[in-house]
Amino acid sequence: MSFSGSPETTNQRLLLLHRLPRFKTMFLSKLRTSYRILNPFDESDPSFLHLSSSVRLMLCVGPSPVTSETLNTYPSLECIVGTSAGFDHFDLAECRRRNIRVTTAGDSFSDDAADYAVGLLIDVLRGISAADRFVRAGSWPVIGELSPLGYKVGGKRVGIVGLGSIGTRVSKRLEAFGCSIAYTSRRMKPNVPFPFHSNIHDLATNSDVLILCCALTEETHHIIDKEVLTALGKEGIVINVGRGALVDEKELVEFLKRGEIGGAGLDVYENEPHVPEELFGLDNVVLSPHLAVLTPESMEALEELFTYNLEAFFSNKPLRAQIEYE
Amino acid sequence: MSFSGSPETTNQRLLLLHRLPRFKTMFLSKLRTSYRILNPFDESDPSFLHLSSSVRLMLCVGPSPVTSETLNTYPSLECIVGTSAGFDHFDLAECRRRNIRVTTAGDSFSDDAADYAVGLLIDVLRGISAADRFVRAGSWPVIGELSPLGYKVGGKRVGIVGLGSIGTRVSKRLEAFGCSIAYTSRRMKPNVPFPFHSNIHDLATNSDVLILCCALTEETHHIIDKEVLTALGKEGIVINVGRGALVDEKELVEFLKRGEIGGAGLDVYENEPHVPEELFGLDNVVLSPHLAVLTPESMEALEELFTYNLEAFFSNKPLRAQIEYE
Repeated sequence: MSFSGSPETTNQRLLLLHRLPRFKTMFLSKLRTSYRILNPFDESDPSFLHLSSSVRLMLCVGPSPVTSETLNTYPSLECIVGTSAGFDHFDLAECRRRNIRVTTAGDSFSDDAADYAVGLLIDVLRGISAADRFVRAGSWPVIGELSPLGYKVGGKRVGIVGLGSIGTRVSKRLEAFGCSIAYTSRRMKPNVPFPFHSNIHDLATNSDVLILCCALTEETHHIIDKEVLTALGKEGIVINVGRGALVDEKELVEFLKRGEIGGAGLDVYENEPHVPEELFGLDNVVLSPHLAVLTPESMEALEELFTYNLEAFFSNKPLRAQIEYE
Repeated sequence: MSFSGSPETTNQRLLLLHRLPRFKTMFLSKLRTSYRILNPFDESDPSFLHLSSSVRLMLCVGPSPVTSETLNTYPSLECIVGTSAGFDHFDLAECRRRNIRVTTAGDSFSDDAADYAVGLLIDVLRGISAADRFVRAGSWPVIGELSPLGYKVGGKRVGIVGLGSIGTRVSKRLEAFGCSIAYTSRRMKPNVPFPFHSNIHDLATNSDVLILCCALTEETHHIIDKEVLTALGKEGIVINVGRGALVDEKELVEFLKRGEIGGAGLDVYENEPHVPEELFGLDNVVLSPHLAVLTPESMEALEELFTYNLEAFFSNKPLRAQIEYE
């Protein structure tokens, strides 16, 4: 793989950088050595209009939406190299219709997402963030003991929603803590030792904890709703490292406020970066700003993957982590 | 095992309740049905002075110090039933000289302590508590991304200080995350697959993380000192679920303030409930008020153990979790 083409070659290797303004790009200067970058935010580039009609390759940063309007802007697009584990931000029906190939972050993030899910669960059960607040507020010498006590991790019945690359890693980790695992998924997985529930309601009824690791699709939108939360019950815990819209957030907030479920660990939200402020006062929730997959190590793995895919596109090699249209 | 003796029997079953005022006792009323409780804080008990000379059995709540002065107050003492996993709060030399048997919490807490150690490590590496503060402060929509990124859990070289019942459980959990484990201990353990380092300095040099799970003894006092912190290095992390005085706290604070180690997760401190305030502003430390072992489930296991031991004393049965004098 060589990236140092002559200026002419680089000029032909046109790359559209597609992103929401809030997603930063740390790798831009590196890409510039190999590609002619087309940046919609760079108003000083007079050739944008001209080039946007001929650009064939898009690098989509994070879950920046690629709608049919976006796609209409780029009539020559053949391939979208994604950098996100999910793919709900792509209009896949339109991509398929136009025969545009789409790739994701593949497994680059799976270990980190699984680690983070387990970290959130231990935190919610054992109250680590709440304890940290208590100590930093200087309350220990004044109040004495922090109450109520948390709950033991071992023995918890953990229901994994989506036993893919992240869910499988979560299950492996939590088995080492003595949790019992069950799961739901589009279909039962072969060679998996854990009980399978064909629907989320049964899984919730038989679980102390639900961990959301699935992709957001039409079928999984609001998969955690009022009925599921009721089935999970007063001491149940929801951990979400998938996508915010897997959960009916309004209902979740109500259940948490009324103490009708036990707690939640949330890395994703329906309307990011907006987080419901009613949660800010609750000690049985742990909140983080969509960073479950963000470590320098996984960023490196991701950069390797998308760099490979960009190059593969121009050399007509097979892409990695390509979405297969059903 | 029957606890409902006649008043005369109960009167003979004298039990000294020994505790620091800040340790609460949730099980007192239950004990009263089986024992005549001698409570040094109950000034309304006119028989204290008289009974203190004849009491044979002490229930020691938490790590309340039992010094030689304490022991001098109770000349007839034969047995101390402890409720703490550690035993550094006992003057064991004096107990041994007087032939007083001493018990601990045994394994009641080991799973919880191990879970908590892993929770603290994930939190420090991935910045969960810091992320939670960031979201609750409303900073996400304003600042955008939280930086710096945390670090991946997998691949970290974890050095366990004291591979006993807690350390072994920590190692089992962290192997499932893809960490590599090594340890130091008084002596090399048979049938343990992990590399053994005969001294803490070598372990620190070869580790990204040190997890303190050992008892506090004369040998382990300040086992983490300036030299060890230097050997651990700029990105090294210290997790302490053992005892505060395993660490030279003043040095640790200086190393953290100067960025000369990477972070720390602390559940215990040298001068509890005092926590060095210089730590309150640091995002790479996680602080909790000595609650690593506190879950309702482990409290139940503990109560079962000490209830058994109290009864065993009066029925001349072998004690459980008794400290063996070397």
